[in-house]
Amino acid sequence: MNVLGIDLGGTKLACAIFSENGDLLVKETVAIGKRKGPEVGSLITGTIVDLIDRSLSQGTDIRSIGISVPGIFSSKTGRVWAPNIEEWTDYPLLSEVSSVSGGIPVAVDSDRACYILGEVWKGNARGCRDAVFLSVGTGIGAGIMVNGEILRGSNDIAGSTGWMALNRPFREEYAACGCFEYHASGSGIAMVAREILSGHKEYDSILGKAAGDEITSREVFEAYDKGDKVAVMVIKEAVEYWGMAVANFVSLFDPEKIIFGGGVFGPAVSLLPDIAEAAARWAQPVSFARVSIDVSGLGGDAGVYGAGRLALRNAENQ
Amino acid sequence: MNVLGIDLGGTKLACAIFSENGDLLVKETVAIGKRKGPEVGSLITGTIVDLIDRSLSQGTDIRSIGISVPGIFSSKTGRVWAPNIEEWTDYPLLSEVSSVSGGIPVAVDSDRACYILGEVWKGNARGCRDAVFLSVGTGIGAGIMVNGEILRGSNDIAGSTGWMALNRPFREEYAACGCFEYHASGSGIAMVAREILSGHKEYDSILGKAAGDEITSREVFEAYDKGDKVAVMVIKEAVEYWGMAVANFVSLFDPEKIIFGGGVFGPAVSLLPDIAEAAARWAQPVSFARVSIDVSGLGGDAGVYGAGRLALRNAENQ
Repeated sequence: MNVLGIDLGGTKLACAIFSENGDLLVKETVAIGKRKGPEVGSLITGTIVDLIDRSLSQGTDIRSIGISVPGIFSSKTGRVWAPNIEEWTDYPLLSEVSSVSGGIPVAVDSDRACYILGEVWKGNARGCRDAVFLSVGTGIGAGIMVNGEILRGSNDIAGSTGWMALNRPFREEYAACGCFEYHASGSGIAMVAREILSGHKEYDSILGKAAGDEITSREVFEAYDKGDKVAVMVIKEAVEYWGMAVANFVSLFDPEKIIFGGGVFGPAVSLLPDIAEAAARWAQPVSFARVSIDVSGLGGDAGVYGAGRLALRNAENQ
Repeated sequence: MNVLGIDLGGTKLACAIFSENGDLLVKETVAIGKRKGPEVGSLITGTIVDLIDRSLSQGTDIRSIGISVPGIFSSKTGRVWAPNIEEWTDYPLLSEVSSVSGGIPVAVDSDRACYILGEVWKGNARGCRDAVFLSVGTGIGAGIMVNGEILRGSNDIAGSTGWMALNRPFREEYAACGCFEYHASGSGIAMVAREILSGHKEYDSILGKAAGDEITSREVFEAYDKGDKVAVMVIKEAVEYWGMAVANFVSLFDPEKIIFGGGVFGPAVSLLPDIAEAAARWAQPVSFARVSIDVSGLGGDAGVYGAGRLALRNAENQ
């Protein structure tokens, strides 16, 4: 049985056909360009129909379709909220794709759910039943697996980890994105660096030479690698937040694995031992002694692998 | 079908026979006294045998037994770690009870798991599939239900909520019990009051009139009700921690209900609106708008109801 996994990102569609053993048979990407609303839907349905037809013409058929979306999938309505895709506030993706799939079952889930599904299937959490994928990019979210199943919550928005409360007292800046995301996301790291520089114009920092509001998290990491004082302050603080978040996942979920992924890991991979050291101080000690902390084994492919796994699980459940 | 629920506490055994609809038919308690180790095991098995025999003599039979333990039950080994029962570091409770139950199935779980099972069955989380019981007594723990199942984790110690990291920077005092428990458990509240009084001998506080190291959390609540300045400081801080913890449960689990229970709620019940107000600032807003925060509907009976529910579920699964 072959299955089709689609990872819808903010800028492109990654598509892959997998065997049921998880061998990647075909992979291709399609740019979204300036499409919005139903145009993105048509791009997805057109790509799927094309891939089904090409598979058939080569004598193999696709038996199930899984789609990862960059936002929230409502299991009750089949609709998608995806903040980075224009006009996708409540998009009927499941029904739209099902209407062209010729009876092939379709499953949709959030990217964070697909990330942990992918890692458990073919990445660094292989075979785990209790595992967390902590995605740190522009924002922060978590895909959480509990006893082999994705943690959905009652409104399908479990894992909103960027909102984790980690630092008293409350600051008004947390209201828009959450405390953890404010301090330790990619955009948070850049923002904290800008805050420090604007408050301490006397600091001799590589970052200070750029226009203050142009700093990116990547530049902060590059400056950190060169020992820049401001960058070291910023990254040390982020490491403490990541460690506290790891500790909270360990104490609450008692997982086998916590996987870091997303654009920031990447450059932050080398910080994993420091994050583990920070987490060790806060976490329930018995759980912490048994958890393993790792980075994504699939990197940018975690979503498409997860979509493939989603397709396979959906086919098995039918 | 009748089932037997046993709630083992630190000082007594509460036993109840339930109908399968959850009607409480018989309830009695047995003091543990100075028993330790196998003596506590014998008290449990003797009580169970006696209850089975009495039921039979009245023409009804018990079809399943559930036991709540004040600690951790290992589902892999069937053994119990219960810090408040002497010599129960690794006690073979499941096999011991099974050996006298005459083939009646026996299930054991931690008290926090039973609390949420009880509340979902017959308390204030009735019918929920995603709910959290936050137990605040001498210590802090959480029973967490995810999609109708208890969250166990890979070592059966999920829900170690007292270890939640909520306050930077790390303090050495957190190492023994966790940050949240240090600040906002019953013992934490008493300890924070003692800290404030020993650092501010000039404060005119009701609590200061007692010997400093004798203060209990109940005395702090009583002083709070009288508007005592130190007690108000202590309780306001605890409310902030409880609010942050609620927020983290909301953002991570997206539950329908969060239930406060344990010895402190009790006196802290009237603080629920303040806790909700604190949580609202920190939590993922969509989840928070839909969650409901409540106190235990079963109070001190949550454990024995949960044990009854555990027995029933185990019978249904066999």
